[in-house]
Amino acid sequence: MTAIRPLAPADHDAWLPLWRGYLTFYEAELSDEQTALTWHRILDPQFPIHGALATDDAGNAIGFVHWLTHAATWSALPYCYLEDLFVAPDTRGTGAGRALIAHVTGWAREYGAAKVYWLTHETNTTARTLYDRVATGTGFVHYEIGFDS
Amino acid sequence: MTAIRPLAPADHDAWLPLWRGYLTFYEAELSDEQTALTWHRILDPQFPIHGALATDDAGNAIGFVHWLTHAATWSALPYCYLEDLFVAPDTRGTGAGRALIAHVTGWAREYGAAKVYWLTHETNTTARTLYDRVATGTGFVHYEIGFDS
Amino acid sequence: MTAIRPLAPADHDAWLPLWRGYLTFYEAELSDEQTALTWHRILDPQFPIHGALATDDAGNAIGFVHWLTHAATWSALPYCYLEDLFVAPDTRGTGAGRALIAHVTGWAREYGAAKVYWLTHETNTTARTLYDRVATGTGFVHYEIGFDS
Amino acid sequence: MTAIRPLAPADHDAWLPLWRGYLTFYEAELSDEQTALTWHRILDPQFPIHGALATDDAGNAIGFVHWLTHAATWSALPYCYLEDLFVAPDTRGTGAGRALIAHVTGWAREYGAAKVYWLTHETNTTARTLYDRVATGTGFVHYEIGFDS
Repeated sequence: MTAIRPLAPADHDAWLPLWRGYLTFYEAELSDEQTALTWHRILDPQFPIHGALATDDAGNAIGFVHWLTHAATWSALPYCYLEDLFVAPDTRGTGAGRALIAHVTGWAREYGAAKVYWLTHETNTTARTLYDRVATGTGFVHYEIGFDS
Repeated sequence: MTAIRPLAPADHDAWLPLWRGYLTFYEAELSDEQTALTWHRILDPQFPIHGALATDDAGNAIGFVHWLTHAATWSALPYCYLEDLFVAPDTRGTGAGRALIAHVTGWAREYGAAKVYWLTHETNTTARTLYDRVATGTGFVHYEIGFDS
Repeated sequence: MTAIRPLAPADHDAWLPLWRGYLTFYEAELSDEQTALTWHRILDPQFPIHGALATDDAGNAIGFVHWLTHAATWSALPYCYLEDLFVAPDTRGTGAGRALIAHVTGWAREYGAAKVYWLTHETNTTARTLYDRVATGTGFVHYEIGFDS
Repeated sequence: MTAIRPLAPADHDAWLPLWRGYLTFYEAELSDEQTALTWHRILDPQFPIHGALATDDAGNAIGFVHWLTHAATWSALPYCYLEDLFVAPDTRGTGAGRALIAHVTGWAREYGAAKVYWLTHETNTTARTLYDRVATGTGFVHYEIGFDS
């Protein structure tokens, strides 16, 4: 059975290779400095960013999820944005992804959020098979204007 | 020429019919209490929600935009989420939408955000014609799990 | 024995007369609108304001505490400001004040704060007898510039 | 004349010796890591911490101020906490301290704060001579419970 627990300082070494696997999946490159900052913010109570780790029967880390809350104009209650979700490829189909989403949903309900939402690439059919089962595809698509920093 | 200015307390009566027009466009119903709360939060410095109004040559309000900032796991800098954008139907094509987006982009750059992003319905072809010109469609799509509050 | 529990929506009617007693003690007048707003913010997860209620053996509400967290320049960790503390006059000496402070201290430690602090009037000798036992008087005094709003 | 400007990235080397002078004045020791973090947060829009630098006629940095905003239970509007204020000893009496406080007061008024407040040690008679002129000593004193981190 997959178990889910909040990320804690001692989880850094278990989380790091999964985070790197996630970035590789998205063909993204982040500096080590950014990775260290993200880890720090997940644990910093001054940032509304949270994380949880999925482990298998043997206690091995097999996936993670990060989420954050922010205000919204359509709701008195905040929204919960599930920003990152990853399950190690060789452990897919074990229900870890579904359990990680359920963890965030349970957390957000208790926190007092109006909803949980996330974004995924339209071509990510494997993930979308799961998402179509546990959530509502709203038909909204994402645009951005990035700044060269 | 369209002029853009930050929303201020005196703009309430100009903003309200535009906000209602926007909700009608999305076939959304919000309570008057929620509308009052949203207006209050746009002006409350304790919420990271901001707004601006577009006016025409005669000083008539013809559109608005709301945006907010939130932390992110991929960036040291916050993201700027352009949550609401509306231009009165009879004044479309005057550049007001583009000017409102440019206002948010300018604000976000000065604020120190990493990017501006927004969501729009995939079927909203009129708006997407503009968005495809000024921003990047990322191919990401939106899922949500809403809570009955 | 005094029991302490986090303030919840159902506690409004128990909290309100204590809050009014507290304001009377400080010879302060707040509008009903402000009182409603403060209650709302204690329960709103978007505000870092928290509250707890003290009850006696019979379950009667006899005191309350409000606290909030904020960033600081001397510490990586946030500070916890215990802003309001009140115990009904006829139940003083039962340990309720000490228990309320201990509740905030326990909460702040778990939250990850660097310290808990509060302000009290230099002439409030009754309260200071307790404070001198459980905390450190730092010798710092308070100045303010208020704005006519 | 003293000039005041918001702290910017290029001001680091001018700010650092003043910050160290301030810590020495309070006989405080902070790690270099904490100093780097504080500087970073002053510039980070995700932290409600702000800073300004005072310069003399020749453009030399002679003082600084840091402030932050936080929510409060007695006010719809946030409070502005002036946490750190320092003027180099050899430039005292030039009005730099008063100008730095006025800068924060002006900022806070425009931001929409209810008040500006600060704490100072009761024995700091030099500073209190100024504070008694520009602000109200409220008679409130400061207690704290620090945590060994």
